This record gives sequence, structure tokens and C-alpha cells, in this order.
Amino acid sequence: MTTSPFHPKDYVRRMERAVAQAGDAGLTGLLVSPGPDLAYFTGYQPTAITERITLLILDVDRDPVMLVPKLERPDVEPAPGATGVSLVDWADGDDPYAVVARLLDPAGRYAVSDSAWAMHLLGLQERLPDCRYSAMTGVLPMLRAVKDPDEVHRLAVAGAAADAAYEQIVGVRFAGRTEREIGADLAGFLREQGHSQVDFTIVGSGPNGAKPHHEMGQRTVRDGDMVILDFGGLCEGYGSDTTRTVHVGPATDEEIEVFDLVRRAQQAAFEAVRPGVACQEIDRVARRVIDDAGYGRYFIHRTGHGIGLTTHEPPYLVEGEWRPLVPGMCFSIEPGVYLPGRFGVRIEDIVTVTEDGGRRLNNTRHEMHIVS
Amino acid sequence: MTTSPFHPKDYVRRMERAVAQAGDAGLTGLLVSPGPDLAYFTGYQPTAITERITLLILDVDRDPVMLVPKLERPDVEPAPGATGVSLVDWADGDDPYAVVARLLDPAGRYAVSDSAWAMHLLGLQERLPDCRYSAMTGVLPMLRAVKDPDEVHRLAVAGAAADAAYEQIVGVRFAGRTEREIGADLAGFLREQGHSQVDFTIVGSGPNGAKPHHEMGQRTVRDGDMVILDFGGLCEGYGSDTTRTVHVGPATDEEIEVFDLVRRAQQAAFEAVRPGVACQEIDRVARRVIDDAGYGRYFIHRTGHGIGLTTHEPPYLVEGEWRPLVPGMCFSIEPGVYLPGRFGVRIEDIVTVTEDGGRRLNNTRHEMHIVS
Repeated sequence: MTTSPFHPKDYVRRMERAVAQAGDAGLTGLLVSPGPDLAYFTGYQPTAITERITLLILDVDRDPVMLVPKLERPDVEPAPGATGVSLVDWADGDDPYAVVARLLDPAGRYAVSDSAWAMHLLGLQERLPDCRYSAMTGVLPMLRAVKDPDEVHRLAVAGAAADAAYEQIVGVRFAGRTEREIGADLAGFLREQGHSQVDFTIVGSGPNGAKPHHEMGQRTVRDGDMVILDFGGLCEGYGSDTTRTVHVGPATDEEIEVFDLVRRAQQAAFEAVRPGVACQEIDRVARRVIDDAGYGRYFIHRTGHGIGLTTHEPPYLVEGEWRPLVPGMCFSIEPGVYLPGRFGVRIEDIVTVTEDGGRRLNNTRHEMHIVS
Repeated sequence: MTTSPFHPKDYVRRMERAVAQAGDAGLTGLLVSPGPDLAYFTGYQPTAITERITLLILDVDRDPVMLVPKLERPDVEPAPGATGVSLVDWADGDDPYAVVARLLDPAGRYAVSDSAWAMHLLGLQERLPDCRYSAMTGVLPMLRAVKDPDEVHRLAVAGAAADAAYEQIVGVRFAGRTEREIGADLAGFLREQGHSQVDFTIVGSGPNGAKPHHEMGQRTVRDGDMVILDFGGLCEGYGSDTTRTVHVGPATDEEIEVFDLVRRAQQAAFEAVRPGVACQEIDRVARRVIDDAGYGRYFIHRTGHGIGLTTHEPPYLVEGEWRPLVPGMCFSIEPGVYLPGRFGVRIEDIVTVTEDGGRRLNNTRHEMHIVS
């Protein structure tokens, strides 16, 4: 599978769609800061996100403008999405908030990128105290949630690369090696399969598997261990994130029971995916399976999260998220059971919503893989 | 040079110092988010900084408390600075801002980490509208600016590693190779010399050198090019950041003139460093040398920035920063001249303030290095 680059018109279309959504939501505009939002709208990613403010202003009634530090201007200009954006620069020693203030409606209502620095928001609030500011995902939660076909394709490429890395890792020796060593192998395989960046390679063996966000450590994996492998990164700018739980040698009856339970929960949740279903419903379906088996209190996180330019973004599959699934949304389905001090099981696929159901972007087998 | 780990008492001392400073500044406390501030106070760095809020509350009148997502709690507990901190967790589906609100003074005045997510600040502002929030570096600008001796030692280790990488890079072939290839060599040398992370390897050849934040590209370096090399990363958690400008083959009279001008500006600024001098004075000294030579309009950035757990932090050596230098502060001195479309020159050292002057943490020669 290959991908071709996005075109300036892709970025223009995204900005237009965002502005229309902002208008519908009663907003004056969007204040977009470096990170995934800015990459989405312009293709521009500064070398580092720093105390020097960069801000794209998408106003419902005006053309796009971007405030940039003077010395970063030459880096912004060639960005594919910068073509239709006027640049306004500020130099060290200037008050950049005063410059932004002149570009905004002093009584406007703006959505601000979630990960914009608090420092910059406070600077704006001080200069424009009569504006109202809201978190982007609070008011425009689905801004980047419905992917273009080209984006789904990129996520599928990333998923296939992660799957290929998984097929490689189950062939390596587990027993007698540390989690860190296995994680390093896995990172190498991800890169070999085309990942430009590896964000995490969680290797949670035995009791460490019961800590959902345990990364990897000096623990030596032993025969008889359940081992959670949760790994992902970026492939051509888009994220992968998949989890499989393997076992070193034969598993006990209890381990098999918990494993099958998680597998059934994941399958049930996947089968519930179709346009119009509320996000929280997918969480409820997975949780019900685990609750019914008496393990509810060991499933301590939501069922999934959206993925795209970042590995955690809307839509969230969590109780309280009443918004419906829409074709093109892409997210993880990853129920888990964690028995403190003993072991954990989690199975995670990225899934995209189709016209009439869901399609997995991870396709390695769900049956328990016995490793050596 | 080697370093030993920080102890729990180091973190306790930092928290005590911060709370004392906050009290002096009339604050109720500090709201510390993941990133350099949290690493400084607790040694804890989450795998990823995400939409799930983690927040350390350092209240002037209460013991330290940290809000953590339930599933990250096991990662926080072993952090060296978490010993004296009570943990309060929240689960997916809870309203974490309601939990924080119960831990704060509803009419308090809090300093918030600069890079805290705007989303989290907005969540707090909504729950606690009568609190006043300020950016950390706005109200406590020098919170992390004065380094402990152990921190200065780490920065010296990082500086020496960067110097060793520079000695290696000037030995490689420049002419006929792309900036990207040379940058990759430089990154390899930094890792070889002990960097755990390479943050940037700017290779700006010929006209690209006139863009101060140009990273590196497909341009092939040619005989007769001036080449800016600006590189840094992390060594045991602390930053390196140094710049040297080299020349491929013999330089022209004009190139030599501009180079010597920058070198003199850097030297003059360095010699002005001593306790009690205002930060902006160092900027003025460098700028005066360049202004006097008629190149003032080509020196388009501040003279320097602090360095520590991050590569850009207070103190900033910029016009308007009237605060005095204090022994233990560490920052870059990096004047530059950029002739658009032609070439640029920058020379940068990290410098620490001593009892009676300054000491360079980068010590490679300042004379123009001729490469092949």
C-alpha cells in the first residue's frame, strides 16, 4: 500500500469545513495552535512547540490568518496548506498577544486547540477579556473525527505495518529476556515496517500486565507469563495503535477464561459498530460482556479512543459520549481485564466506521498466541 | 563526567522553595502539569501528555497533592519525588475538573504551568470562575532558572557531549552531501557521545543559513558555503544546545568580516555576564556590537534563552527582561547575523553564572573552522 501527499486543496477544504462547523456552533472562529490541529489544517509542524506563539485564526467571516514568530516564517511559507493563509509575524520583544488581539473580534467566541499552551490562552484572555474561549473538543468535538478517504487509507497503511511487526515479534524469544529487550525488538520491527516514529511499545508481563499503562521494565519474562503487547507510532503522519496479549507456554484455565472473555467483549463491541449508534453504546456493549462474567471492576478504562494525526483524539468510546458514529470515524476498540498483582489481558484493534458497519484496520488473529 | 540520580529530598527541597516563592508572590499555589515543571518537582514524566489530566497542586498552606488518571497511578507511585505527595485518582467517565475543584481554594490565585493544556485550564476556569490563574513564567519566572549544583553538572555533561560531537562533525565531508545527510551524521555523533535524545540538528548551508530556524533539507552543500550547525538534545534529562558556523573551503573577505563580528558580539556578551546584571543587558551588549558595525537589522532574534530540563526556558536574554542574573542560572548566548538569500552566521554557547562572572559549558573554539 502506498499513499500520495495531501494537496493544498485538501487543506482548503478542511478549513472551509471547520469554519462551517464553527458557524453552526455559534462560534466566531477557531484558534489553532501547533500540534495535530495545525498539521491538519496547514500541513505545518514547527520543529518544536515552544513559548513563542504560533496561531492560525480561522474566522467565520474573514480569510485565514496565521501569526508566526518572525524567525520561523521561512519554515511556514512552504507548508502545503499555507498557500491560502496570510501570515502575520512578530519579533522577539514584541507583545504577540497584542498582535493577535488586533486580528480577533473583541467580543468573539472562539474555540481553542485543546493542547494550546495555557500561557498563550492566559495572554489572550488578558488582552481580550470579553471574548469567550472554549476547548476545541468541547465545542467542535468531531472536528477531525471523520476522516477523509485518504486519511483512512493512511491509517490502514499504519495498521498493516503494525500487524506485520506483530507477526515478527511473536517469533522472537520471550522467556528469559527483559520486557525492555522485547520492547526494543518490537520498536525495531515497527520501524522496519515503515513507521517513521515509534511512540510506545508496552510490554507488560505477568503482574506488570495488570497496569494498563505500564511501559516496559527490567522484569525478565518467564515461562507461564501472560504478556500484553501494546504498540504504535506514526506511519506517514498517521497513527497505529494495537494490542495483543500473548502467553509464554501453555496457559492455565483461569488465564484462558479471562482471555476469552476479553476477546468476546472486543468482538461484541466491534459488531455493534455502525453509523448512528452512540459512541457510549460501544463502551456499554464491551462492558456488559465483562460485567456479566463478574469481572466488571477489573475493566478500569474506557473502551476506545479516536486515532488520526494523534493516537488519542475524539471520538472517545466512553459512557457519556452520546454523539453518534459517522462513516469515516476511526478509533480503537480495546477492552481489558486487569487482575492486580497477577496479570492483565487487552485486545485492541483500530476500526473504521463504514456505511453499514465497521471495518478493522488491524487484522492479526485474536486467538491466544503461545510464544516461547 | 558522570552524574548520580536526584534523591527524594532534592524534590522535596524544590517543592518547598517553590511554595515559598509562591507565597512571596501572593499566590495560593502552583498548578503543575506534565512536562518539565512536573519532572522538576517529582521526577515523574508520563509516557505521553494526553487529554487525561494529571496535575500536581503545590498549595502554600497544604501538603502537596497530585491528581492522576486512575490507570496511570501505578506509574506515578514509584517516581522519586512522589514520596511526599498524596495521590488522588480519577477514572474515565468522571469529571476530573470537579475533582480538582475540591482540592483548590475557590477564590485562590494560582500559577499554572506554561504548557498546561488550554483545555484543562478552561475546565478549571469553568468549575472555579472566581479563581485567578496566571502563567507560571509570568508570575514565577525564575522558578527553575537557578540551577542546583547537580543540575549545572548535568548541563556541563550535556555540553561536553555536544562539544565532542562537534569535534567529530568537522571531520566529515561537507561538499557534495546534502544538509540532511550531514544532520544525520551529527545526530549519530550526539547519540554516540551520550545523548539519549536528539532534539534538533540544524544544518543551514549557504542561503539556508540565513533562516535561523531552518532545519535541514535536500540542499547539497557546495564548496564556498558558510554552514550553520545548531544542535542539541538531552543527556541524562538535561539539555545541550550549541551552534558553530563552519565554512567549506576558504571564505571571502565579507564572510570573514561578518563571522568576526558575530564572534566579537558573542565574546562581549559573555564577558558582560555576572550576578546582578539585568538579563536584557546581555542582549544589549551583543546587539550594540552588531549595530555599531551596521548589521543591526540582520540580528533578528533575542540573544539567548535559559536551558535545563527544556532547551528554551527562563531566563530569556531579551530587551524588557529587567530581572538580574543570579549564580546558577544557565542560558545560551547566541548572537547571529542573517543576510537573506546569501548566508548566516551564529555562534552559541551555554553559559552558567558563577559568583563573579560566567563560565562556558561549551568550549570548542570560536575561530572559523574550515571544513572540506
